Amino acid sequence: MSTNSKNRNYKLKQTWYSKNNGRNQKKGNGTKSKNNSAKKQIKKPSVKVSFLGGLNEIGKNITLLECEGDMLIIDCGMAFPDGDMLGVDLVIPDFTYLEQNADKLRGIVLTHGHEDHIGGLPFLLSRINLPIYGTPLTLGLVGNKLREHSLFNKAMLNEVHAGETVKLGCMSVRFIHVNHSIPDAVAFAIDTPAGTLVHTGDFKIDCTPFSGEMIDLSAFARVGDEGVLALLAESTNASRPGYTPTEMLISDSLDSLFKKAEDYRIIIATFASNVNRVQQIINCAEKYGRKVAFSGRSMVNYMDVAQKLGYLTVPKNILIDIDMLGKYPSNQIVLITTGSQGEPMSALSRMAYSDHRKVMVGEGDFIIISANPIPGNEKTVGNVVDELLKRGCKVIYESMYEVHVSGHACQEELKIIHRLTKPKYFVPVHGEQKHLRKHAELAQFLGMDRKNIFIGDVGSTIEIHEDYMKELPPVPAGKVFVDGLGVGDVGSIVLRDRKHLGQDGLIIIVASLDVYDGHVISGPDVVSRGFVYVRESEVLLDEVRKTALAILEDCADNNIHEWGIIKNRIKDDVSKLIAQRTRRAPMILPILQEV
Amino acid sequence: MSTNSKNRNYKLKQTWYSKNNGRNQKKGNGTKSKNNSAKKQIKKPSVKVSFLGGLNEIGKNITLLECEGDMLIIDCGMAFPDGDMLGVDLVIPDFTYLEQNADKLRGIVLTHGHEDHIGGLPFLLSRINLPIYGTPLTLGLVGNKLREHSLFNKAMLNEVHAGETVKLGCMSVRFIHVNHSIPDAVAFAIDTPAGTLVHTGDFKIDCTPFSGEMIDLSAFARVGDEGVLALLAESTNASRPGYTPTEMLISDSLDSLFKKAEDYRIIIATFASNVNRVQQIINCAEKYGRKVAFSGRSMVNYMDVAQKLGYLTVPKNILIDIDMLGKYPSNQIVLITTGSQGEPMSALSRMAYSDHRKVMVGEGDFIIISANPIPGNEKTVGNVVDELLKRGCKVIYESMYEVHVSGHACQEELKIIHRLTKPKYFVPVHGEQKHLRKHAELAQFLGMDRKNIFIGDVGSTIEIHEDYMKELPPVPAGKVFVDGLGVGDVGSIVLRDRKHLGQDGLIIIVASLDVYDGHVISGPDVVSRGFVYVRESEVLLDEVRKTALAILEDCADNNIHEWGIIKNRIKDDVSKLIAQRTRRAPMILPILQEV
Repeated sequence: MSTNSKNRNYKLKQTWYSKNNGRNQKKGNGTKSKNNSAKKQIKKPSVKVSFLGGLNEIGKNITLLECEGDMLIIDCGMAFPDGDMLGVDLVIPDFTYLEQNADKLRGIVLTHGHEDHIGGLPFLLSRINLPIYGTPLTLGLVGNKLREHSLFNKAMLNEVHAGETVKLGCMSVRFIHVNHSIPDAVAFAIDTPAGTLVHTGDFKIDCTPFSGEMIDLSAFARVGDEGVLALLAESTNASRPGYTPTEMLISDSLDSLFKKAEDYRIIIATFASNVNRVQQIINCAEKYGRKVAFSGRSMVNYMDVAQKLGYLTVPKNILIDIDMLGKYPSNQIVLITTGSQGEPMSALSRMAYSDHRKVMVGEGDFIIISANPIPGNEKTVGNVVDELLKRGCKVIYESMYEVHVSGHACQEELKIIHRLTKPKYFVPVHGEQKHLRKHAELAQFLGMDRKNIFIGDVGSTIEIHEDYMKELPPVPAGKVFVDGLGVGDVGSIVLRDRKHLGQDGLIIIVASLDVYDGHVISGPDVVSRGFVYVRESEVLLDEVRKTALAILEDCADNNIHEWGIIKNRIKDDVSKLIAQRTRRAPMILPILQEV
Repeated sequence: MSTNSKNRNYKLKQTWYSKNNGRNQKKGNGTKSKNNSAKKQIKKPSVKVSFLGGLNEIGKNITLLECEGDMLIIDCGMAFPDGDMLGVDLVIPDFTYLEQNADKLRGIVLTHGHEDHIGGLPFLLSRINLPIYGTPLTLGLVGNKLREHSLFNKAMLNEVHAGETVKLGCMSVRFIHVNHSIPDAVAFAIDTPAGTLVHTGDFKIDCTPFSGEMIDLSAFARVGDEGVLALLAESTNASRPGYTPTEMLISDSLDSLFKKAEDYRIIIATFASNVNRVQQIINCAEKYGRKVAFSGRSMVNYMDVAQKLGYLTVPKNILIDIDMLGKYPSNQIVLITTGSQGEPMSALSRMAYSDHRKVMVGEGDFIIISANPIPGNEKTVGNVVDELLKRGCKVIYESMYEVHVSGHACQEELKIIHRLTKPKYFVPVHGEQKHLRKHAELAQFLGMDRKNIFIGDVGSTIEIHEDYMKELPPVPAGKVFVDGLGVGDVGSIVLRDRKHLGQDGLIIIVASLDVYDGHVISGPDVVSRGFVYVRESEVLLDEVRKTALAILEDCADNNIHEWGIIKNRIKDDVSKLIAQRTRRAPMILPILQEV
């Protein structure tokens, strides 16, 4: 292990290695034969991996490792709600299993600062306060988030740089620098008593990144040479052949668009977290003598953190407040805004629908959407583009120019990581089923046995041992909905009702009954919402009233006083009537009162 | 005009031409000088075009032409609801303007049998019964639709073939064969006293169509040589450079996939209306000795019509009922199904979610999605693919193989039509703003003056004259929602309520008040739906009850008996309470009864 002990980048590794003599010497090298007998005697334990999120979904990434009684968490993300999760603001992982094992948890390591990797943290920390380990920018973003939730003061944030190692119980996590669409992203090599696991986080291989270093392929190579028990690698772009283009490409496109737009105000929408993209835009603005303003809360927040921590360099006097836009000729302005996904409340959407308090767009605007629609957002992005076009704006969108590159590795890049790490077992992570399958096929194409690949689901747990990998029963896991201040109080029943109400509306039938004989004293009154426009449907609603009245009187006459039975009869008969007349199925809600 | 009179394809044209001597001789030719003086004397009238649908939207195509007191309608389509049109089944045009002008309407001409061109017909015909003109397959599909609405018997369906002409008042409509993703599609050259208008319908140029003839470019050329006042051309693919590939391409792809899938049952999802696609699949099935079954109501219906009218040729003994699937080895079966857009209730979706009564999919299935997701459907299609993959199916989707080609003309094809028809004025139709703009740019690129191009919206009306084109005030037009049996009874208020209910649920507060002094006799009772899971929120709902009770008693004590005031106070205070506790905004519905 002499070559490794020389590598001073991994500060804590030496200590760790001296404690765990010979553990990583699976691959043949000079020392192997000497230790062979010792190795046979000390049978390695296994490591358990539980996927609490990020499989069969985009977002909500969180992985749990357990070895010899110690647990560590990799990332703790959130996801945005699907269209059928009505009224839900965001989706976080189910933390039940973590709460059940709180005493074993040694800490959380973070790969990078995107919401799908850190967005769940406030909700976890409010239950279990664990030490957090991340790179400076990641922690800067986490810090902001925790302040919003009043959790910052008691949070235990530990800054770690790529090249350093964190010891968590019997496991050590080496931070490896990678390229991604946010600076300061890392992968992990996690040395456990069972062997080394590599988790790529989100990454791509950019040989000419716009700023910072290229992904530390040498580190992946070293880890691979030492021996990797299992690789957990992201799969977002596993269906895409070839390479993801370098971020540097954008500079040229921006330059030519700035030239083209010399008579226009330029508005560029991009991801607030893409600090390097914003830096390129600012550089271009400087070159063409334009002032820069930020629009959108998250853009302002991210740039604030990035600037403070030195990830964004803003030339003097170039930044202006959005309120100052009017003081400059419009062709001397670049407005950098959120809303590249067509989010309804975002700054760009508000501009498109003439609903922005400070920015009115029109024929003098040259708008660049420097992002691709995330699957599911195609329609909303398209609508925003249409609205901007209707107002006479020039709009650069989709692949009209090279104004966006992905932050995720395509097939050729994934292959390189597989080849460098040479894992015994492989688990594709971060992706929908189609991505996980494609990634598995890729590993098979590289020669891996299908039996050594595990395609899991949220909750899946596997035990990995040098001699085998097997699936264990799943652990509690799933989606928890956050709606306003409520966490987890919106479940399937509430969503089912929301869906029913949203699709068909409701009819409420209220009546006051005599407490003695059950006869109707007042009502029944019929109130509807979201069903039909009432003024045009008086006849129908009167029929509903009569139907209900008849049932109520019939029940009273026949001494039926159980409200459950009465309500069900009203529901059944009114539903039938409505279906017959309208072929619709509103929610029918009888409410009875005793007087 | 001697060349034209020889063209016996246009049966009625000769009559028409003799009545309108010299009208179309704007372009320089041998006869021009002779007729010049006559032309100056007879000043041509103008023609009015109203776009009742199809602009700034995909679907609901309908265009109205008016000249010298005669009106004709081109197509009468429907659109599918957007995500925010909760509970709406389909969207049809607003027919108000047509009803106002019923006495001028001479008939409806149909370009082809897709829903976005014929789906609105039953709703129009139930108000105004007009003669309909279309090609055999189009009328076959219209007939089926009218039967469902019990409108068939009184319908006036007139079969017209490509090459023939229909006279409607002072206007004549020449039917021109085009290629599209359904057989028997046509464009129109409409000769009016104001000049000739060309409406392309939906089309592409397929020089080697799988069956039938290539688009009749010669007809477009002849019309162009005679002189075209205005071109109305579809814009669906106006953003796509190059050419749409030929349908013939699919045969080779299918063939190689059938070979690849020799041990599997094959399931292919495609558009039910794409008769040629289905024919290719059937041919492939015959070649590889497989039986064919249809799945999905619309697939069965379309194939029934197509077969009866001779557009689909099915070899003997190849077709089996879906109930007979079990009688054959699965690798001797091809199941052709609906659901290529991931529609929740479609056959393929049901298979994917193990909810199909007759087909259970699994590892023995090779599934081909022979269609691209229509914008907005990417996510649902992706979800269906994921579910199929989870069940172990092989799935061919997206652009993995060439299993789909578009039915719409790309830029190079559009250019050819522009060049052949040589219009004076141009109106891009059938598309969202981005498509219309792109198409306008294309026309400008070809040398047309921007002033001669009109980009309109639903309701836009233009007057076209040989000397000018000008916009008139818009006519009544818009979206009418069909929900169950209700047409137009779901409007913006109902949709707003549905959205509110769907996002946030509701809280109902019911109380019976003393008719004399207004004091509470019974209640207030609090009922909620879609808000929170009640059992976990008893404390909060009890607070709501107490708040409402306090207001009711306070009003009674202070002699406030106006229910509007009382209800508003309850709404306000309860909303505040709920917002404070939960940061949510459910609908608050106080209902009072007098006893």
